[in-house]
Amino acid sequence: MPGTTPSNITAKTQFVHAGNETYAYRRFGSGPARPLLFLQHFTGTLDNWDPAVTDPLATERQVILFDSAGVGRSTGQVPTGVAGMASHALDFLDGLGLESCDVLGFSLGGMVAQQMALDRPSVFRRMILVGTAPRGGEDIMHLEKPSLARHLSDPTLKGYAVLQKIFFAPTSTSQIAGGAFIQRLAQRNEDLDTASGPDVVAAQMAAFRQWEQSTATRFGDLNDIRQPTLVVNGTHDEMIPVSNSYRLSENLPNAVLLVYPDAGHGSLFQFHDSFTRQAAAFLASDSPFAPY
Amino acid sequence: MPGTTPSNITAKTQFVHAGNETYAYRRFGSGPARPLLFLQHFTGTLDNWDPAVTDPLATERQVILFDSAGVGRSTGQVPTGVAGMASHALDFLDGLGLESCDVLGFSLGGMVAQQMALDRPSVFRRMILVGTAPRGGEDIMHLEKPSLARHLSDPTLKGYAVLQKIFFAPTSTSQIAGGAFIQRLAQRNEDLDTASGPDVVAAQMAAFRQWEQSTATRFGDLNDIRQPTLVVNGTHDEMIPVSNSYRLSENLPNAVLLVYPDAGHGSLFQFHDSFTRQAAAFLASDSPFAPY
Repeated sequence: MPGTTPSNITAKTQFVHAGNETYAYRRFGSGPARPLLFLQHFTGTLDNWDPAVTDPLATERQVILFDSAGVGRSTGQVPTGVAGMASHALDFLDGLGLESCDVLGFSLGGMVAQQMALDRPSVFRRMILVGTAPRGGEDIMHLEKPSLARHLSDPTLKGYAVLQKIFFAPTSTSQIAGGAFIQRLAQRNEDLDTASGPDVVAAQMAAFRQWEQSTATRFGDLNDIRQPTLVVNGTHDEMIPVSNSYRLSENLPNAVLLVYPDAGHGSLFQFHDSFTRQAAAFLASDSPFAPY
Repeated sequence: MPGTTPSNITAKTQFVHAGNETYAYRRFGSGPARPLLFLQHFTGTLDNWDPAVTDPLATERQVILFDSAGVGRSTGQVPTGVAGMASHALDFLDGLGLESCDVLGFSLGGMVAQQMALDRPSVFRRMILVGTAPRGGEDIMHLEKPSLARHLSDPTLKGYAVLQKIFFAPTSTSQIAGGAFIQRLAQRNEDLDTASGPDVVAAQMAAFRQWEQSTATRFGDLNDIRQPTLVVNGTHDEMIPVSNSYRLSENLPNAVLLVYPDAGHGSLFQFHDSFTRQAAAFLASDSPFAPY
C-alpha cells in the first residue's frame, strides 16, 4: 500500500518552533539505532533528499530531514556564515528534545556538521561527511568555473535537470545515474517545499566564501572533532573537489575515507546501494574507532 | 584441533615447477569464490602474511601465497624491475593451471599486480591494491628518509620488531596494533621460509627506483586496467605515502578508495577485522563496477 513504507516520497512535513524560528522538517522510519540527522546542500530543501538514500537508512532508525532558517518553509533569514547555520541546527535539535544523534552532512551540510561538532561535541555520536570540505579548503563551490557555469547558464536545463549535469560526472554511466536520481526526486508530488530563491543563493555563497578562509592553524580545528567519521566523495567532484575530502581524512583524527569512481558531487546518489550499505555498516558500529 | 582450521600459521609450504623456476607457495582454504592470489611486500616471504588477514578470507575461497623468484625458498634471481616479477607471477599461475583469479597486492606486490593486469588483462577478475603506488608515483620506499632510517638503523630492533615501527603509525594505538601483528606472525614456528638477504633488498630497491620513473603519459597506463579495484591505505604511510593511493583511484577508471586513520603502511594488519570484512564484501560482488 502506498504510504506504508517510510519514505521521503510520502513523509509528511512537520514544523517545530525553537529558538526564534519555526523549522520545517520530516521525521520517518524506525528502529533501535540512533536517529540520523540529514544536513542539506546549497539551495537544497527537504525535497532534494533522494529517497534511495533516506529510505534504506530509515529501516533501522528514524531519519530527520531539516530546512535551516530561511530555506524551504522554515522562517527567518539564511545566515551568511556556517556558524549561524550550525546554531540554527542546534536550536532545531533542542526543539525536538534530541540531545544526541548521528549525522549525515552533504556538501554545505557537511560544513554545518563540522561546526556543530566543534560547538557542541556531545551532539553527535558518529558523523558521515559527503562531498564536503574542511574550513580553509580549496575550490569550494566556484559556480563561475566553466565546467559548472556552462550548465548553470544553459537555458534548456530547468529545475532538477541542472542537478543531473552538475552533481554527476560527464560519463554516460554517471549521467544515466543522474537521470535516475532526478526521476526519484520527482516522485514526490504533494506537500512540496518552497524552492530556494536568489536570497538563499546569495547568503549561502557568502558562507562558502567565508568557509574558504582558514583559521589561524589551517585544518587545526579538525583535531578537535573526535567522533568516528566517514568521509565520502566522488573522484570527479567539480563542485567541492575530492582533495578537500583528502584533507578531511588526513586531519580528522578518527575518519575513514571512501571515494567512488566515475562519480561527481552526487556520489551518494549515484551509488546509493553501496553508499547506504556502507553508511549503515558504519553507523551500526559502537567502536570508538571509525573503521567498520 | 590444531591444524584443522586453514591458516597461514600451519599451512604446509608446497612447490611447483613452472617456466624456468621452482616456486614456493601455500594454498589453503576453500569455498565457492574465486581463488585469491596474495602478492607480497619488499623482502617479505610467505611467513610475512598476517594470519588475521589471510585466514578470514580463506573461509570463502582458496588463498594462494607465493614467493617470487629468488625470495624465500623459490629458485632463481630476484628481478630488478616490476615487469620481471610480473612475469614470474604469471608463470607461477600457469604452473598451477589457474587462468583467472582475484588478487591482493600489498606494497611491491600491488605494483606487480598492476603490471600483471596490463600484461595479461584476463588474469584478474577483481583487484585489491594496498599500500602501493602507480608507476610514476612519488616518494616510493625511500628508506633513507629520517622517519624510516632511524628505525632501520636501530640496533635494538631485531627481526619482526622493525616492522612494528615502520608499518605502523607512531601513535600508541597504532604501535599496540603493531605489537599484536608481530605476535601473530611469530605464531608460525615450523616449515619456515628463508629470510631475505641483501641480494633481495638490492634487486627490489632497484625495482622501486625504476617504478618511480613515469612512462610517457604519467598514470596513462592505469586507464587500461579495467578490473573493479579496491585501493586501500593508511593515512600516515611513510613508506609509500597515501598520495599514491589518491593517484591510483583518480586514474584507475573503476576503483574505490578506502583510507584508514591512525595507520601507516600496514593498515590492513592494524584494522584486520575491518579490512577483511571490506575485502570480502568487495570480492563477493559480481558487478562490473567497483562500488560494493
